[in-house]
Amino acid sequence: MTATIKLGQLAEILGATLRGNEEKPITGLATLQEAGPAQLSFLANPQYRKYLADSQAGAVLLKAADAEGYGGDSLVVADPYLAYARISHLFDPKPKAPAGIHPSAVIAADAQVDPAASIGAFVVIESGARIAAGVTVGAQCFIGARSEIGEGGWLAPRVTLYHDVRIGKRVVIQSGAVLGGEGFGFANEKGVWQKIAQIGGVTIGDDVEIGVNTAIDRGALADTIIGNGVKLDNQIQIAHNVQVGDHTAMAACCGISGSTKIGKHCMLAGGVGLVGHIEICDNVFLTGMTMVTHSITEPGAYSSGTAMQPAAEWRKSAARIRQLDDMARRLRQLEKRVGDVTPDGNASSDG
Amino acid sequence: MTATIKLGQLAEILGATLRGNEEKPITGLATLQEAGPAQLSFLANPQYRKYLADSQAGAVLLKAADAEGYGGDSLVVADPYLAYARISHLFDPKPKAPAGIHPSAVIAADAQVDPAASIGAFVVIESGARIAAGVTVGAQCFIGARSEIGEGGWLAPRVTLYHDVRIGKRVVIQSGAVLGGEGFGFANEKGVWQKIAQIGGVTIGDDVEIGVNTAIDRGALADTIIGNGVKLDNQIQIAHNVQVGDHTAMAACCGISGSTKIGKHCMLAGGVGLVGHIEICDNVFLTGMTMVTHSITEPGAYSSGTAMQPAAEWRKSAARIRQLDDMARRLRQLEKRVGDVTPDGNASSDG
Amino acid sequence: MTATIKLGQLAEILGATLRGNEEKPITGLATLQEAGPAQLSFLANPQYRKYLADSQAGAVLLKAADAEGYGGDSLVVADPYLAYARISHLFDPKPKAPAGIHPSAVIAADAQVDPAASIGAFVVIESGARIAAGVTVGAQCFIGARSEIGEGGWLAPRVTLYHDVRIGKRVVIQSGAVLGGEGFGFANEKGVWQKIAQIGGVTIGDDVEIGVNTAIDRGALADTIIGNGVKLDNQIQIAHNVQVGDHTAMAACCGISGSTKIGKHCMLAGGVGLVGHIEICDNVFLTGMTMVTHSITEPGAYSSGTAMQPAAEWRKSAARIRQLDDMARRLRQLEKRVGDVTPDGNASSDG
Repeated sequence: MTATIKLGQLAEILGATLRGNEEKPITGLATLQEAGPAQLSFLANPQYRKYLADSQAGAVLLKAADAEGYGGDSLVVADPYLAYARISHLFDPKPKAPAGIHPSAVIAADAQVDPAASIGAFVVIESGARIAAGVTVGAQCFIGARSEIGEGGWLAPRVTLYHDVRIGKRVVIQSGAVLGGEGFGFANEKGVWQKIAQIGGVTIGDDVEIGVNTAIDRGALADTIIGNGVKLDNQIQIAHNVQVGDHTAMAACCGISGSTKIGKHCMLAGGVGLVGHIEICDNVFLTGMTMVTHSITEPGAYSSGTAMQPAAEWRKSAARIRQLDDMARRLRQLEKRVGDVTPDGNASSDG
Repeated sequence: MTATIKLGQLAEILGATLRGNEEKPITGLATLQEAGPAQLSFLANPQYRKYLADSQAGAVLLKAADAEGYGGDSLVVADPYLAYARISHLFDPKPKAPAGIHPSAVIAADAQVDPAASIGAFVVIESGARIAAGVTVGAQCFIGARSEIGEGGWLAPRVTLYHDVRIGKRVVIQSGAVLGGEGFGFANEKGVWQKIAQIGGVTIGDDVEIGVNTAIDRGALADTIIGNGVKLDNQIQIAHNVQVGDHTAMAACCGISGSTKIGKHCMLAGGVGLVGHIEICDNVFLTGMTMVTHSITEPGAYSSGTAMQPAAEWRKSAARIRQLDDMARRLRQLEKRVGDVTPDGNASSDG
Repeated sequence: MTATIKLGQLAEILGATLRGNEEKPITGLATLQEAGPAQLSFLANPQYRKYLADSQAGAVLLKAADAEGYGGDSLVVADPYLAYARISHLFDPKPKAPAGIHPSAVIAADAQVDPAASIGAFVVIESGARIAAGVTVGAQCFIGARSEIGEGGWLAPRVTLYHDVRIGKRVVIQSGAVLGGEGFGFANEKGVWQKIAQIGGVTIGDDVEIGVNTAIDRGALADTIIGNGVKLDNQIQIAHNVQVGDHTAMAACCGISGSTKIGKHCMLAGGVGLVGHIEICDNVFLTGMTMVTHSITEPGAYSSGTAMQPAAEWRKSAARIRQLDDMARRLRQLEKRVGDVTPDGNASSDG
């Protein structure tokens, strides 16, 4: 389970400057506070600098400036957090699935499964699907008709792809995610909802990550599209016809309504909701639980909601918000009246 | 995969007035902007009228008024969006499952499965369950003891019904949905939560649609009830004992707390939350992410939340909201004082 | 399906004072309004006292004070709701799974499954996993490498545990829940997200309940930790490295961001969101849909958000909130000016 790698080897892999014993065996990673003498730690956030001196870590990834005063073994790198990200995969206890098809899997005669792919127990792969080399399809996954998974993909157990879902290379999908569900399309006929068939598909770029229980619906006519390098956390809802630009990241519980288009390099914090049929430009940051009801055309950070208060105070604020239009009118009125009797008469504009 | 239907046949199916070549083969549907010469499009929303003239669509579904100035082939109908909804199913690439039971399925000896039902791979059907004619149970579904699925239902792969879940006719359930989970019922005994068995079931009406990863809990004592024609999008939470009236629609990520009763023909936009033990009357529309903390007795539209702002401005607004009660009192005080010194003394009421 | 228990036996089980016919057969539980002559009901909430006199219930669980004026059969207890919780399990129609391993299950040679455990159809149990006595693993569950489930646990069908998930005794997990998913950890390298391996695990205490489709991610380095007696409802997101204290309860749709620590005996209503890296002390109550952006150090109730309004009024309030900083400054200005001309010059402080 536990890998053992010498400190010198880690330095070589990272291109880091080694200070200390290159023969020291490293068996894992931990924080400065929790690391033991066989573990590597890292100092990325300056607020943890206070833990460096007393850390029991066998070695520490840090910047040159922080290495100066540190007496223990260290690997000096330009970006310790990025170095930690790289090295973390060497110590990942995640089991590696062997290539080959589990005998219990049910695979359509005309599906194409590369011999270097791994197909787990109770997997179903339907007609015309294609699984490329180096792909792992975890146990209990369902791969619908004509769906495709590009090289090096990793599907955790119990991922569902409907038909006509096209996935790029090196895509990671966590358990419970569903791609290609039928979007919420209904026409109203005298109060009764008539279903609209969802005849588009889903297109996922390369190097995408999709979290636990996240749903990405198929398009109504054309495809729902997720760009390259997009990272989607758990419990996210992506409705039909949405487009998400390259390298955009969304934290958990976001909901994106139908036909909305999100730019590149955006970041959505947890619980953000977007209405349908709007466009968000590149490089937008939305803070947690923001409700977005119109397009955003300027990069930058945006928010909605109110700050938390003790509940008793909150009830007063909430009641006052409902009186706010009245308050604003009364303030304007007062300004006018005070303007009549005070020397510097003109009040500020009402906006 | 691709159906081909002559324009004349489509006119006949829809009862539409055909203008143009009845022999023209139609192979699919697309928007006015994306449709090619073998595709049918539609003009429903007036804001897309600008795309009509330049559309490459082989034919267009439109109203008589819009057909006047249009030179291409067309099908004239009273409601183009509804016509598109109807015709969409003819071009749906969704695979049709053959009747019969997959040999890998595990079915209790006393379960009743109609010979005209289709049961997929790795399905489990428990004791006393009943599957009617024309039902499709997708691969990896679980149908608990005594649960029933009415005629013509369609369960996508990996849907879970616990025991005693009764489903009407023509119900569609997307992957990952769970019906009949044990609701959140606990009695607090000196700080420790004691579980209450959830002994009710779930009753789902006819023509209901349930989205990806949506959860509908069983009742604590009586059933949780979903009316006829209700449409639930993805990632929705319906707690125990909730009742949802006929033809109500909820967009994704809504959460309905226990014992709340929602009327008929309501519409809940995405991310709406309702507290428990309240009643919403018929014909209520709740805008996105609204928090509903008390019953609604008048039809109409309701909202909560704040409008999005650039984060720097939002921080100021959020801070001011916490001062709002103080501001309101100061405003009232000012009005009184200004009333003492100005001619039109009486300020407006505090509400 | 239906248990029949004599009223005298129920009195004995509960240690209740029986008033009435100890031979009366009880076949189920129902509310005061819905109970029939063979059903037991309960009066816990004083607001339902009005239904007592006309109830058709065969017997009622109630307090001594309420029993005085009641003519029907009754079981007098100190806490009727708690008594109902205890007795409810006797009437639970949930099927009991027999001990043993379903022949379709795929179990690694070195996994340890106690003979008194029940393993359902299409279950996968991977290398080194351990399933204790009295555990039920429902159909289609996946138990990853080295994961452990303590005595008396109950997993509904289709629950997924990744590798290295350690679960205490008597833990209940509903369908669709995923424990041990890879948390959302990425380092940004010039706009491109580099994945950080999630090498920690998940530790779940005793007597925990986890709802439908809830996700609990594994830790990035150390474990994500859920304390004893914690109750998590449906559709919840627990991010990597979160710690939840003993006996805390969360209603559906809550989202807890990474590394946040929640105390003991807290209650989170539905849809609450917490940002990452904060601490919530013991005995905190968060009302529905509250957004928590900083640590809480004092026990008590907290809220955010705005109260619902008719949409037309809401639009005005929402517009005014964006003007609030301007309004506050104008109010301050007015106070200063009015202070110059009125007798009691000093306005209340701005802060």
